[in-house]
Amino acid sequence: MTYCIGLLLRQGLVMVADTRTNAGVDNISTFRKLQVFQREDRLVAVATAGNLAVTQSVVSHMVEGLEDEHGELQTVYTVPTMLQMAEFTGRAVRFVAERDAEALKKDGSTFDCSLLLAGQIDERRLRLFMIYRAGNFLEATEDTAYLQIGEHKYGKPIIDRSVTFETSLDEALKLALISMDSTMRSNLAVGLPIDILVLPRGSLTPSVNLRIGQDDPYFEHVRNRWSDALREAHMSIPNPPYGH
Amino acid sequence: MTYCIGLLLRQGLVMVADTRTNAGVDNISTFRKLQVFQREDRLVAVATAGNLAVTQSVVSHMVEGLEDEHGELQTVYTVPTMLQMAEFTGRAVRFVAERDAEALKKDGSTFDCSLLLAGQIDERRLRLFMIYRAGNFLEATEDTAYLQIGEHKYGKPIIDRSVTFETSLDEALKLALISMDSTMRSNLAVGLPIDILVLPRGSLTPSVNLRIGQDDPYFEHVRNRWSDALREAHMSIPNPPYGH
Repeated sequence: MTYCIGLLLRQGLVMVADTRTNAGVDNISTFRKLQVFQREDRLVAVATAGNLAVTQSVVSHMVEGLEDEHGELQTVYTVPTMLQMAEFTGRAVRFVAERDAEALKKDGSTFDCSLLLAGQIDERRLRLFMIYRAGNFLEATEDTAYLQIGEHKYGKPIIDRSVTFETSLDEALKLALISMDSTMRSNLAVGLPIDILVLPRGSLTPSVNLRIGQDDPYFEHVRNRWSDALREAHMSIPNPPYGH
Repeated sequence: MTYCIGLLLRQGLVMVADTRTNAGVDNISTFRKLQVFQREDRLVAVATAGNLAVTQSVVSHMVEGLEDEHGELQTVYTVPTMLQMAEFTGRAVRFVAERDAEALKKDGSTFDCSLLLAGQIDERRLRLFMIYRAGNFLEATEDTAYLQIGEHKYGKPIIDRSVTFETSLDEALKLALISMDSTMRSNLAVGLPIDILVLPRGSLTPSVNLRIGQDDPYFEHVRNRWSDALREAHMSIPNPPYGH
């Protein structure tokens, strides 16, 4: 399982992804699901959820390249705009689907794959997309400033209540970590370490691009403090009057 | 969609269920999903999730009766123990599955049904079961004092963090309402009114058995206060140190 969230805010982009993969509960591994591709003209971040064999192939083909409609080889480093990057990513998904979907179906499995794609190229607009397994995609907007893939439900309520387009990057990262903590507590298949990326709007250099592991004191503090705060929060609400 | 939760605590039983049903987002109705069957020797509560045509039939047959292995007609009012009531409910599910599952499958639909069954008969132990669509079931224990059916994920984190077997009935009802609120905010197919039942352990008479509608001042207060408290809670956590 996987949980990844991307938030596109006035101040910039926040992405958070876990690293746990599992083939059954008895086969758990750590794989990077949030990848960052950087050149002087661009920063492109890709987070993946679904069948790991599928998503690895999709990302590998984005790096190795796919021919466009004119027969030119395009890669994550050459596609000229983020909209075209979303289309390119969708083509990579369809390329792997064509290769693997039938065999997966025969094997009783499904072609399962979704991605968050975000970034900026040159002076163009910072954008955040979600790419579906059919290769189609949607984009985050000011109205709904975040997108999630994977095990999204446990961590959605806190985001729904607290994040708007105007939320600051620091606050959004904190809330994304709380959202990740809620998910990890309820689904063992989502786990540490966590990769985080913060990209201020207008910049091609992340202000944060690191991995949070077992011993990270801030994340540990968030986890404990959030539990306490939730307890205090529901204690502060009076008991129901019904039946009294 | 549906969200129902049952909590079996040292002090007794709490059940909360919404009433919204939908066949597509353009066809939304209100149906009671939490039903209470009471006689001088028993109180039995049944909450249902899944295909409404299926769950209505299951409950109807529990009331109208099904023959047991000796050819005797049993109903929700005659089955002598809660364990046998769980088996009886499972048989009612299988009875309807035999009648409808094939036709539903042909129609491209699925036989979808799960129930919470709780209550006490005579001086016996108060028990809480979840019955699956295959008619099998599991029981809440002191280790995991609650069971959920339907759209369970949005409302699970607050319960996971806050409810134990020792939680008081008032506190548990409050938490179940917070859990319901989280679910309603994230899934439009779960909605008011909400039916609630509280049964103190050892009693066959509920201390609370009522419906919360649009204008319930306490639930309104919970919703607003919880939003504020969550905001205060995450504001009280310092911003991430990363990148500073």
